[in-house]
Amino acid sequence: MSQSNARYRFLMIHAFSLSDEARHHLRPQHGSKETVLMNHAELAPLLSDVDWDLHPGARATHGDWPVERQEEFAMVGTNRLPIVKEACESGRYNAIVLLGGGDPGFFAAREIGRRYGIPVTTCAHAQMHLAGMLGHKFSIVDISEVHNMQMYHLVRQYGFTDRCASIRNIDYPLPRPPYTHPHTLHGEHAKAERGETSGMLEAAVEEAVAAIEEDGAEVIILGCSGAFWLQRPLQERLVAMGWEVPVFEGYRCAIAMAKSMVDLGVNYSGLMVPSDPPPRSRRRKIF
Amino acid sequence: MSQSNARYRFLMIHAFSLSDEARHHLRPQHGSKETVLMNHAELAPLLSDVDWDLHPGARATHGDWPVERQEEFAMVGTNRLPIVKEACESGRYNAIVLLGGGDPGFFAAREIGRRYGIPVTTCAHAQMHLAGMLGHKFSIVDISEVHNMQMYHLVRQYGFTDRCASIRNIDYPLPRPPYTHPHTLHGEHAKAERGETSGMLEAAVEEAVAAIEEDGAEVIILGCSGAFWLQRPLQERLVAMGWEVPVFEGYRCAIAMAKSMVDLGVNYSGLMVPSDPPPRSRRRKIF
Amino acid sequence: MSQSNARYRFLMIHAFSLSDEARHHLRPQHGSKETVLMNHAELAPLLSDVDWDLHPGARATHGDWPVERQEEFAMVGTNRLPIVKEACESGRYNAIVLLGGGDPGFFAAREIGRRYGIPVTTCAHAQMHLAGMLGHKFSIVDISEVHNMQMYHLVRQYGFTDRCASIRNIDYPLPRPPYTHPHTLHGEHAKAERGETSGMLEAAVEEAVAAIEEDGAEVIILGCSGAFWLQRPLQERLVAMGWEVPVFEGYRCAIAMAKSMVDLGVNYSGLMVPSDPPPRSRRRKIF
Amino acid sequence: MSQSNARYRFLMIHAFSLSDEARHHLRPQHGSKETVLMNHAELAPLLSDVDWDLHPGARATHGDWPVERQEEFAMVGTNRLPIVKEACESGRYNAIVLLGGGDPGFFAAREIGRRYGIPVTTCAHAQMHLAGMLGHKFSIVDISEVHNMQMYHLVRQYGFTDRCASIRNIDYPLPRPPYTHPHTLHGEHAKAERGETSGMLEAAVEEAVAAIEEDGAEVIILGCSGAFWLQRPLQERLVAMGWEVPVFEGYRCAIAMAKSMVDLGVNYSGLMVPSDPPPRSRRRKIF
Amino acid sequence: MSQSNARYRFLMIHAFSLSDEARHHLRPQHGSKETVLMNHAELAPLLSDVDWDLHPGARATHGDWPVERQEEFAMVGTNRLPIVKEACESGRYNAIVLLGGGDPGFFAAREIGRRYGIPVTTCAHAQMHLAGMLGHKFSIVDISEVHNMQMYHLVRQYGFTDRCASIRNIDYPLPRPPYTHPHTLHGEHAKAERGETSGMLEAAVEEAVAAIEEDGAEVIILGCSGAFWLQRPLQERLVAMGWEVPVFEGYRCAIAMAKSMVDLGVNYSGLMVPSDPPPRSRRRKIF
Amino acid sequence: MSQSNARYRFLMIHAFSLSDEARHHLRPQHGSKETVLMNHAELAPLLSDVDWDLHPGARATHGDWPVERQEEFAMVGTNRLPIVKEACESGRYNAIVLLGGGDPGFFAAREIGRRYGIPVTTCAHAQMHLAGMLGHKFSIVDISEVHNMQMYHLVRQYGFTDRCASIRNIDYPLPRPPYTHPHTLHGEHAKAERGETSGMLEAAVEEAVAAIEEDGAEVIILGCSGAFWLQRPLQERLVAMGWEVPVFEGYRCAIAMAKSMVDLGVNYSGLMVPSDPPPRSRRRKIF
Repeated sequence: MSQSNARYRFLMIHAFSLSDEARHHLRPQHGSKETVLMNHAELAPLLSDVDWDLHPGARATHGDWPVERQEEFAMVGTNRLPIVKEACESGRYNAIVLLGGGDPGFFAAREIGRRYGIPVTTCAHAQMHLAGMLGHKFSIVDISEVHNMQMYHLVRQYGFTDRCASIRNIDYPLPRPPYTHPHTLHGEHAKAERGETSGMLEAAVEEAVAAIEEDGAEVIILGCSGAFWLQRPLQERLVAMGWEVPVFEGYRCAIAMAKSMVDLGVNYSGLMVPSDPPPRSRRRKIF
Repeated sequence: MSQSNARYRFLMIHAFSLSDEARHHLRPQHGSKETVLMNHAELAPLLSDVDWDLHPGARATHGDWPVERQEEFAMVGTNRLPIVKEACESGRYNAIVLLGGGDPGFFAAREIGRRYGIPVTTCAHAQMHLAGMLGHKFSIVDISEVHNMQMYHLVRQYGFTDRCASIRNIDYPLPRPPYTHPHTLHGEHAKAERGETSGMLEAAVEEAVAAIEEDGAEVIILGCSGAFWLQRPLQERLVAMGWEVPVFEGYRCAIAMAKSMVDLGVNYSGLMVPSDPPPRSRRRKIF
Repeated sequence: MSQSNARYRFLMIHAFSLSDEARHHLRPQHGSKETVLMNHAELAPLLSDVDWDLHPGARATHGDWPVERQEEFAMVGTNRLPIVKEACESGRYNAIVLLGGGDPGFFAAREIGRRYGIPVTTCAHAQMHLAGMLGHKFSIVDISEVHNMQMYHLVRQYGFTDRCASIRNIDYPLPRPPYTHPHTLHGEHAKAERGETSGMLEAAVEEAVAAIEEDGAEVIILGCSGAFWLQRPLQERLVAMGWEVPVFEGYRCAIAMAKSMVDLGVNYSGLMVPSDPPPRSRRRKIF
Repeated sequence: MSQSNARYRFLMIHAFSLSDEARHHLRPQHGSKETVLMNHAELAPLLSDVDWDLHPGARATHGDWPVERQEEFAMVGTNRLPIVKEACESGRYNAIVLLGGGDPGFFAAREIGRRYGIPVTTCAHAQMHLAGMLGHKFSIVDISEVHNMQMYHLVRQYGFTDRCASIRNIDYPLPRPPYTHPHTLHGEHAKAERGETSGMLEAAVEEAVAAIEEDGAEVIILGCSGAFWLQRPLQERLVAMGWEVPVFEGYRCAIAMAKSMVDLGVNYSGLMVPSDPPPRSRRRKIF
Repeated sequence: MSQSNARYRFLMIHAFSLSDEARHHLRPQHGSKETVLMNHAELAPLLSDVDWDLHPGARATHGDWPVERQEEFAMVGTNRLPIVKEACESGRYNAIVLLGGGDPGFFAAREIGRRYGIPVTTCAHAQMHLAGMLGHKFSIVDISEVHNMQMYHLVRQYGFTDRCASIRNIDYPLPRPPYTHPHTLHGEHAKAERGETSGMLEAAVEEAVAAIEEDGAEVIILGCSGAFWLQRPLQERLVAMGWEVPVFEGYRCAIAMAKSMVDLGVNYSGLMVPSDPPPRSRRRKIF
Repeated sequence: MSQSNARYRFLMIHAFSLSDEARHHLRPQHGSKETVLMNHAELAPLLSDVDWDLHPGARATHGDWPVERQEEFAMVGTNRLPIVKEACESGRYNAIVLLGGGDPGFFAAREIGRRYGIPVTTCAHAQMHLAGMLGHKFSIVDISEVHNMQMYHLVRQYGFTDRCASIRNIDYPLPRPPYTHPHTLHGEHAKAERGETSGMLEAAVEEAVAAIEEDGAEVIILGCSGAFWLQRPLQERLVAMGWEVPVFEGYRCAIAMAKSMVDLGVNYSGLMVPSDPPPRSRRRKIF
């Protein structure tokens, strides 16, 4: 992408990439950006006025499987920072969208972006803010016990403990050694697309309904990017049951939030994400 | 506006209109929509891809002066509802933007809009949500003691007591009988545009700085639409002092939020704003 | 009522009145004030030392059925304000009690009352404060999904999110077009009085017990004035089950609160409900 | 008092009594109940329809001076319990009012009262609830560092941390060994009544204003019964300055709350203050 | 104990003692300190580097049975204070550990201890703080409805309402007149030690699991010292079920907290527990 | 260290190490562990019964200066993880203490430690928990605007927003390019030790007093390990002024917390820090 005059010039960066030899891949490793971007068909309308590039993410250094543990999130988050910095320096983008459900590296990445005047948005963060606009409380339908706790940390970190009704665990973890979990999310999307019953979708419906009926959720968001394909079928199933609740996934929310920030010409407050050195300091911060 | 194929087709509705005989007007009463819409020049870029109409608002029934009291807010809020309903029925709009700082009639209006599948956004509500995205806490710089308490109610109603650092009173009330307040916001914008010192702007700078230094504000929003012109000069003054805090006004935030809702194809949750009758009911609601 | 020397001289104002042609009436439209005041027998002891008048409420302008939607609440709330003002100006009352469960027009009405030095109380507000005195948490047993959300807004507005354990929906809505709901609260009181089983009472018992056992409620309050007759039978049923929880309804709470305010010679703080113009202004408000 | 048919039959119990030899007395030790009850003239209207007795309180066992420390509060609180029990058993009262600002023994006393179906009210508790009715936040103007922390504990215990803007210390402690504090509250009331300047009143005005301007207080309550005489002069001073804030003291609030409880025929929830044995138990309690 | 050079010199004080004639005893009344200290074998490793004495507690004055009511807690709490004072004056201890689950007399005791520079710790307080270190939320498994509400008050008093997921009632109250409860905790420990099924342990497992699955507990603490023996078997049962949650009891937590305070050379803040007179006063306290 | 039979066998790990060529060093780069460990003399008593090793930290990869930015914290945090893992695998330690004020890598490190049954503690986390034990609220005296915001994130992450009164900025940042800040903390400790006036200490006293008087702090903790030397002089200065507030630094708190965890035989809850795979999963998590 170059010399674009588009209102929106975005780089989207995957959380990490695996080797071609990885035992399971959650998305195509090669091909056009439209091929590699998960759920592109759903995103296409929102991207229609965006000039966008896609970065496959830094090669994973924690192992050749996806991310769920704190250790893994820390590693891939740090690995992504040089990509953010390089993109900022290139001058080609007016916003950066971090893909991936658990927001690895977001705080550091937005700090880098702010130094260049470039907004950086990401999936869980954007989902929570947009969910907060549309309902009093939201629940996170998420894939596994271990991943849940990353979402838990994000809810606290972003200050949404009062608006998050619950994190609901559907127990469809990402594939990982020793690959013995009775079921994982791998292949569930394909199954659903073929019109077969997806245990993962059924579990998501069950937990979303429980979140609505028991926890007070008025909006549903999805925790892991590997589950973002659930957005449409889960939305349809809930509406069919009479539950008029918005269901979000992270990519569109992060893109929409980036658009809003570009439209309004704003970035994160320099008091939350200070310049270094900051032009001015506060004597105190309060909560 | 008709037969538009624009992505965004918005009706913007003023909170109320006064008679030509009113003692003071805060905006031109007649002319093109660009003339009548306050601060149009600032909004133009954001509106460049929007097909928009402007409704001058229902004629005020509480008196021939602007709104600050609870009684007045209740009256103009109710007066605005038939306009919202008619706009929804017209089929011409895919979002409605309620103008006016104190959000009169918003809850009822969004309920009406939802019935027609049309998002309704408004100024304080949108400002608070966008401010929450960009900083840990925001303060509201607002015009008068009486108007402040309307903002106070909105902060509680929208669930932002934890994110609102303070409401700061610059004591430049709207003109009202008996028109004896030592200073009001009438004419201050013009003064500032002529390059003269505006006491209102100076007060806003002073209170914004106090909000930052004493109250923990990381973003500033403006309370009354009559003060939305402060956005640019206040932003510039703060940056010049070294305070890198975003300053918002309501119109652009409400427009940007409407765009996001249209882009994402969403409306308020049917659990927060129930259909009547609702397709399904919850046994309990919790906080 | 005139020339009364009573300690208490109250005007009670119904939320709205319907036409004689309305399809359903929740209370007698004509007759003595004792006839028209719902559940008068229960209130009589509390009113025994009060000189009171009853206003039937402004004629409804939203339609000829009771109120549940936001739009309807806004309309009847605004319609009631001139009655409040006239009553204040008459000099005949030392307190005004707004009847109706969802508190339409309360904020504006208490602002008007304060201008005349006359306390204005209302049902949900008084119930929540008295419930907060007697237990750590209360739940609201309420009639319908749509009405529930009005109660939800009131809990937030009054600052009781920490003390409200839940709103429990018994799904006995008010009668309204197209009058097809499988059951409504119309006629349930009469049924109970005739000694027949009332589905509405049974549902209230069930939800009150769930509120106690699952939500942590230690006091029960009732949401809609059409359900205030439940107070005694619900209280009796709960005690019979071993649950020693106070059950409130709104009329007595609002009257008792009005008495306390008269006894103590106080009104709402001028900082919460400012005079206009206020004798003095605060630079900031915090939460 | 006997064979009374009054609606209200109250026993008011002082927190403790000192010996005649005590170095300082805060109230007359002997005489009619009207003499011994502090600030009786202010209370008389509220007591005009009450048949009331006054108990001077158990003789202090911690020393011959008033109470400020935790140790002292624990001791006088426990000493008061047999008086409460005896009063309940006498059958002569339909409510008991515990006098004294720091509420010694309240939780145990209300438990005893509830066993007999008799409401027990007390000063700080009633003040906080009534203050919460009239404003968003209240501050406590209180006498000393040590006494402040008792008030602090009560605010937490009663669940008012969100509504209490601050505790303001005027540093006029109760007289106590070694009687070397540069100033105490002893004699300040008399000074004020003689029309002399009272340092204590001046300090109360200063701190109340600071509470309003800096802390967000909209209502003022008083911490120590030895300071309850400040109610009227402090109220007058604030109004004269333009601050329209209600000022409460504890006796009237506790009496008014007892009247409301008698009027409504209620007592504390059996789930907050369980019977022993309770007729029914909850599996869980939540916050 | 005398002339000890041990790093830790602790006095542990039971909450109260009963007469030899009491109908039930929860611990041996006579014998070595190791005999009299409940669950000594579990505590021995933690006490191995402590020179410790054990005080049997003041003789109960409320009756000859254990403590559950507010009245009883107030009485035994006050009775314990002279023992604390005497121990402080003896100069023999560098910390005092108050035994007993409901922390009777703790606030007054720590005030006394602080006057002598001696930390005072206690069971529920220490458990809550340590539980807060190891998990986001804890639940209290506790013995009876009446005792539960004492725990409830402590959670509020100590500021743990946000971290306490629930109080779970196993309904095994302490033995008390008229001794007719269908089951009490008396003898349950012995039963469990004999390898028989203990209904109390089974109930504790059931409620702990419910706390984990339904309430969000990540750590379990025990409410009553009579239930502290449950720590080991409950821990083992939970781990065997796959729930990797720490289970605490009060004695070890209070001892460990005392050790930390001695190690760090600290005591409670003089602003929370003021000296009398305090060397310096704050003008205000906030929450 | 090997074959130790000590109760405590700890590895302490610095946050990072710089090259010998770094422009400034905050601690000796070479020598015995006692030399390299900052403020060893203060820590010696607490370490007297500990067999401990010291790891100098991974070589910094972000640059050759200390850490303040989010990006830098992410990098050094991730760099430290292999050291933690290796230490766990060695079998030589029963706890690991992460040094450094901003807790880089803590969440991932404690997850690793838990896998091996080894508690991992760290400075800010331990300080906040211990501060919460000794006072209602604490403030963090911290070195710079940028570092402050890391502390801000930790307060949120650890769930201490209600207990943290404020973060106070003394504006003595760590030395970093372009090394033009008018003053940094480099050399301040030495100055103070030589008996010269240290601007850094003076600023810390000023901000600690402001935290006490204005923000409600009852305990002071220190944000950056480069400022931990302030503990003793700041404590002494405050006490000399009459402020009896505990002052903490991170190393001792982290060591004391590690001792408590070893003493009690506990680790973080497996529900907060799940095993992978977890033996059992919860359906939902709540806040």
